[in-house]
Amino acid sequence: MSWNTFGRVLRFTTWGESHGPMIGAVVDGCPPGLALSEADIQPFLDARKPGQNKFTTQRQEADLVRILSGVFEGRTTGTPLSLMIENTDQRSKDYSEIANTYRPGHADYAYDAKYGFRDYRGGGRSSARETASRVAAGAVARLVIPEVTIIAYVAEIGGDAVDPDNFDAAEIQRNPFWCPDAAAAKRWEGLVDEARKSGSSFGAVVECVATGVPAGWGAPLYAKLDADLAAGMMGINAVKGVEIGDGFAAARLTGEENADPMRPAEGGTEFLANHAGGIAGGISTGQPVLCRVAFKPTSSILTPVDSVTRDGEATQVRTKGRHDPCVGIRGTPVVEAMMALVLADHKLLHRAQCG
Amino acid sequence: MSWNTFGRVLRFTTWGESHGPMIGAVVDGCPPGLALSEADIQPFLDARKPGQNKFTTQRQEADLVRILSGVFEGRTTGTPLSLMIENTDQRSKDYSEIANTYRPGHADYAYDAKYGFRDYRGGGRSSARETASRVAAGAVARLVIPEVTIIAYVAEIGGDAVDPDNFDAAEIQRNPFWCPDAAAAKRWEGLVDEARKSGSSFGAVVECVATGVPAGWGAPLYAKLDADLAAGMMGINAVKGVEIGDGFAAARLTGEENADPMRPAEGGTEFLANHAGGIAGGISTGQPVLCRVAFKPTSSILTPVDSVTRDGEATQVRTKGRHDPCVGIRGTPVVEAMMALVLADHKLLHRAQCG
Amino acid sequence: MSWNTFGRVLRFTTWGESHGPMIGAVVDGCPPGLALSEADIQPFLDARKPGQNKFTTQRQEADLVRILSGVFEGRTTGTPLSLMIENTDQRSKDYSEIANTYRPGHADYAYDAKYGFRDYRGGGRSSARETASRVAAGAVARLVIPEVTIIAYVAEIGGDAVDPDNFDAAEIQRNPFWCPDAAAAKRWEGLVDEARKSGSSFGAVVECVATGVPAGWGAPLYAKLDADLAAGMMGINAVKGVEIGDGFAAARLTGEENADPMRPAEGGTEFLANHAGGIAGGISTGQPVLCRVAFKPTSSILTPVDSVTRDGEATQVRTKGRHDPCVGIRGTPVVEAMMALVLADHKLLHRAQCG
Amino acid sequence: MSWNTFGRVLRFTTWGESHGPMIGAVVDGCPPGLALSEADIQPFLDARKPGQNKFTTQRQEADLVRILSGVFEGRTTGTPLSLMIENTDQRSKDYSEIANTYRPGHADYAYDAKYGFRDYRGGGRSSARETASRVAAGAVARLVIPEVTIIAYVAEIGGDAVDPDNFDAAEIQRNPFWCPDAAAAKRWEGLVDEARKSGSSFGAVVECVATGVPAGWGAPLYAKLDADLAAGMMGINAVKGVEIGDGFAAARLTGEENADPMRPAEGGTEFLANHAGGIAGGISTGQPVLCRVAFKPTSSILTPVDSVTRDGEATQVRTKGRHDPCVGIRGTPVVEAMMALVLADHKLLHRAQCG
Repeated sequence: MSWNTFGRVLRFTTWGESHGPMIGAVVDGCPPGLALSEADIQPFLDARKPGQNKFTTQRQEADLVRILSGVFEGRTTGTPLSLMIENTDQRSKDYSEIANTYRPGHADYAYDAKYGFRDYRGGGRSSARETASRVAAGAVARLVIPEVTIIAYVAEIGGDAVDPDNFDAAEIQRNPFWCPDAAAAKRWEGLVDEARKSGSSFGAVVECVATGVPAGWGAPLYAKLDADLAAGMMGINAVKGVEIGDGFAAARLTGEENADPMRPAEGGTEFLANHAGGIAGGISTGQPVLCRVAFKPTSSILTPVDSVTRDGEATQVRTKGRHDPCVGIRGTPVVEAMMALVLADHKLLHRAQCG
Repeated sequence: MSWNTFGRVLRFTTWGESHGPMIGAVVDGCPPGLALSEADIQPFLDARKPGQNKFTTQRQEADLVRILSGVFEGRTTGTPLSLMIENTDQRSKDYSEIANTYRPGHADYAYDAKYGFRDYRGGGRSSARETASRVAAGAVARLVIPEVTIIAYVAEIGGDAVDPDNFDAAEIQRNPFWCPDAAAAKRWEGLVDEARKSGSSFGAVVECVATGVPAGWGAPLYAKLDADLAAGMMGINAVKGVEIGDGFAAARLTGEENADPMRPAEGGTEFLANHAGGIAGGISTGQPVLCRVAFKPTSSILTPVDSVTRDGEATQVRTKGRHDPCVGIRGTPVVEAMMALVLADHKLLHRAQCG
Repeated sequence: MSWNTFGRVLRFTTWGESHGPMIGAVVDGCPPGLALSEADIQPFLDARKPGQNKFTTQRQEADLVRILSGVFEGRTTGTPLSLMIENTDQRSKDYSEIANTYRPGHADYAYDAKYGFRDYRGGGRSSARETASRVAAGAVARLVIPEVTIIAYVAEIGGDAVDPDNFDAAEIQRNPFWCPDAAAAKRWEGLVDEARKSGSSFGAVVECVATGVPAGWGAPLYAKLDADLAAGMMGINAVKGVEIGDGFAAARLTGEENADPMRPAEGGTEFLANHAGGIAGGISTGQPVLCRVAFKPTSSILTPVDSVTRDGEATQVRTKGRHDPCVGIRGTPVVEAMMALVLADHKLLHRAQCG
Repeated sequence: MSWNTFGRVLRFTTWGESHGPMIGAVVDGCPPGLALSEADIQPFLDARKPGQNKFTTQRQEADLVRILSGVFEGRTTGTPLSLMIENTDQRSKDYSEIANTYRPGHADYAYDAKYGFRDYRGGGRSSARETASRVAAGAVARLVIPEVTIIAYVAEIGGDAVDPDNFDAAEIQRNPFWCPDAAAAKRWEGLVDEARKSGSSFGAVVECVATGVPAGWGAPLYAKLDADLAAGMMGINAVKGVEIGDGFAAARLTGEENADPMRPAEGGTEFLANHAGGIAGGISTGQPVLCRVAFKPTSSILTPVDSVTRDGEATQVRTKGRHDPCVGIRGTPVVEAMMALVLADHKLLHRAQCG
């Protein structure tokens, strides 16, 4: 099957391949009356777009979004929003090698096994290029949840983690790594540049925090807020793990250590810890929603890796040319977008049942 | 919202509260002609049911399943299967305390915030008792994928992990911890018993392996096999993290270390590693599908934890009486069931599009 | 496929066969806090239940509903409602004839073609007995839309229509035909009794009016209110046609004749006609929602009809014994239920997007 | 809510307004490997497109379709197909009148009631222009069901019906009315031309026949084939009624008259009548699937009709300029497309469950 729609009430459907003429998203179910223009979306695409510095792929894409429907006189009408982005740098080149060879770690082999053949140009539909569509959709989702602030950042590259004591939100925008720790950012420069030069790659961990989420969002039992976040994040290219709150670390705590005590506070209840990551029983508690996402290292590396051809012959694959030495970096705006999309959907879902 | 259905083609809907008269599941979309009776389901419920040893809650439930529809002359008819389990040990007791107090780490506060009130008896709908319904549905799912073998086991309790060198699949059924390492099982006896006696609790990591999954299952881009697994696992009570393959460890590897080389082999392609956990681009590769699931420690502990009442007064909560000192243990059969449900659904989804 | 769930936000799933132990429905997405007990549902089941007079099947079913989940202290909790009805009169008899013979006009042949075999006892899942589950679900839906009043009635039996000039809503409850025209009810007594005695059957047209529906419900373009009503009604056993407003008659009018002029009125807009049946562009206009539903005559008749056996041999089928001489009569409460279910779902859908 | 997706396995999502830059459809779930190019879609759009003769609106649209994704080297890849059509004749004109006035019979009032405001240019999203997207999607669906032949035709305009004795399928393509009866086509010329000149309009009945549908398609109980057809057809602009087989006429027959006897035949079973329209219990029987659809007369007429302004003032509306005097005519290819889309979806649904 092909299933290119995400969401239950606020739903988006994406389409397009890495080397087709365009990619896009249709966002359906958006409330009417929201002020929306391309200028509300473009900054998020700019944050994600490739070729901005030497630490990401050198593919050059303007990633200019057009809104083709669903907006009238500057406001959403409640009808589907069609968002479209042209592919401008789908370099004409010889794809015969990739056409006949399965790149280890990529989806080549799996797509062929599933569909019998594949659009091999740049990974076709399985390319991370598709995430631009999500980022565009995510920008719309943000307008649905103005009460929520979402920040994602890279917490770890190649096993080198930020120091929580150095955390400075303002720093995130100041370096090419979305890194909240200036010292770590400095270290990563060397690390990632080395990988880039040697044709190696690193994995990364991205953290995302959503503040302002009121208690009560989440649809138990099979559209729990954390379950939908897990699905959304795990579906991002190269993601292999998702944690809510303390995640796997919670599995190593005792009940006493993992407790999130509560006490009365002005205007409601105050939590004294947030091991749970703002979600209990699949429903938001009013605390910040915390999510951690593991990105594997880019599979495209210069070192030859054993592989097979479509015809079942042994071969080796080594990847020259443009690619991200650490996909987690450009994955950061995508994580933010998915957080926005899941939260916006759940705001509307909650309103449907609970008024 | 309330959203109690999981799956896209093979869908199940569960209902019921911890202390209602019954709980159950309706399984829809099951292929016709499969041999099915209660005897095919009961062993899986028996594996999950409480009160079997001193390491789990002492609630006594026979958890006998009845099939009320969808089977005729011993075979599934293709119409919905209604599975039902009576609650027999919903102990009559005084719930006034829990009614007015929010147990930290439980869904009490969130349910009240969402719905305005809640069925507080034993956690109501948010109780892990509901997972019996999933296990029953999972037993049906297994019949849909006879080509697949699924094994889950506890890999870690309270930070004490099994030794891969001691791995013995036959051991899993021999100890009360679903532990594949006899030495670890021995250690855990002491550990968990201590927690039980002192009213403390431990988290756990459960691993699940599905072998026999052919290449090609998974529905990119928003019903990827790994995304659906993530949603399914994260939706289990007390789960806070999900990994596919190497998961977070992959984020700490280089591209060279994380590579899964391939080579020609009899009857197809052989992989020389499985960092990816059997899934690439959201589609199965034919390798074993590997999933790891983090369970937080049980929130019910004897140590008093600061909390608030429904009326916003400060209070403390300490939990005496029956509960699981490590919910991950009984979560193991639930992880297996969710794996079966996701895989069976994707087998049918794949067939829909690709014949 | 088997697809036993209806609705988008307020969803219900039914299960059960004519001759199984029970049938039931799970209603999910119901708002919390609604007062609900079996007494709110039972009257609607009583209205539909068989064996109440000589004009319907003589199968005797108490059709007592039990609520097994989702209600606490008399109010809906927002979690799934499990409704269950025992089958008490699944007469033990020899089904060998029906097992091997396809009853013309019934689903026997189609079910066998689809699933390879079937539960032939009383039609199994294809029996109109299932509609009891919808009626129970519909009773819950009514609680979601207290602002709406729904009345269905039989407008025509065997081509003999009520006289609009004789329309008296109070009359509907006074005769066994849900007939709003006392004179027509009198005529139908003779008509239907004759059919009953001779083993023949009649079709019927049922009309349904929902007043109090505010303007704005309906989800264009593929969940239009009229499209969802059409799906809901066409899915009722024996239904072959659905009209909104003037329906097919509108196809014979000119634009001038079919116009629904508007004029200002106290508190808003007044319509001077309702050819549209209260729906424009798939969205309610605030006028009464009007729907007409065509029921074919019962296929079970005493006159032999040519048929085939499972083995492909020629045979003839004639039906003795209990059946409805005019299924449209007992279909009337089912039409009401489906109207309630569609409207309640759309109320919540509208709220999700438009607040 | 806004809900612009149709289908369960083969799903399409449409977007776009009458006077936006483009409209389009994303078709998801299409099997891989089907030969597809614009040339497979264009003829169906050409059949629907406006301005081809004096009996339809004089809006001039080339309606050229582009495929932007999902096809590689001439074959579908199994990933989403993005189909796009430019709006070229969205005439720049003064819309101030329509902006402030509700056109009776149009969706203006309902959209405003729902969304608070609307894109009033040419009806915005509620314009029949959207049906071009469905027709494009329908062309793809046809490729999924090569075994099925679908023909729709106009059976009645303004109450003047074709004579079954004159039925000639070849005639359908020969006149501007999709009329299978040459004599009726002749009469309709006068009728419709008169309406056009006088600024009046007529309703129509469209019939659609699908032959080659095997027995077994349809997903009881809430995705019955007839229920999905009813939803699909009722959702077409201006449609007010749907019948399967004899439809409302069946309600006036006795059981004897309505019977569809069967007898053994070479290669299976032969039916001696088709009152049921090829569907029993929501499942196809192998007979031709028959559907009738009622289109109301175009609401845009020259005769003034009482109405109100957005501000609640009394006004009158009369429509000069381009519009279809009988929307049912151009609705005919749309009916065909919806039939194809429903059948293709059900073919895949059936395959999912029953292999």
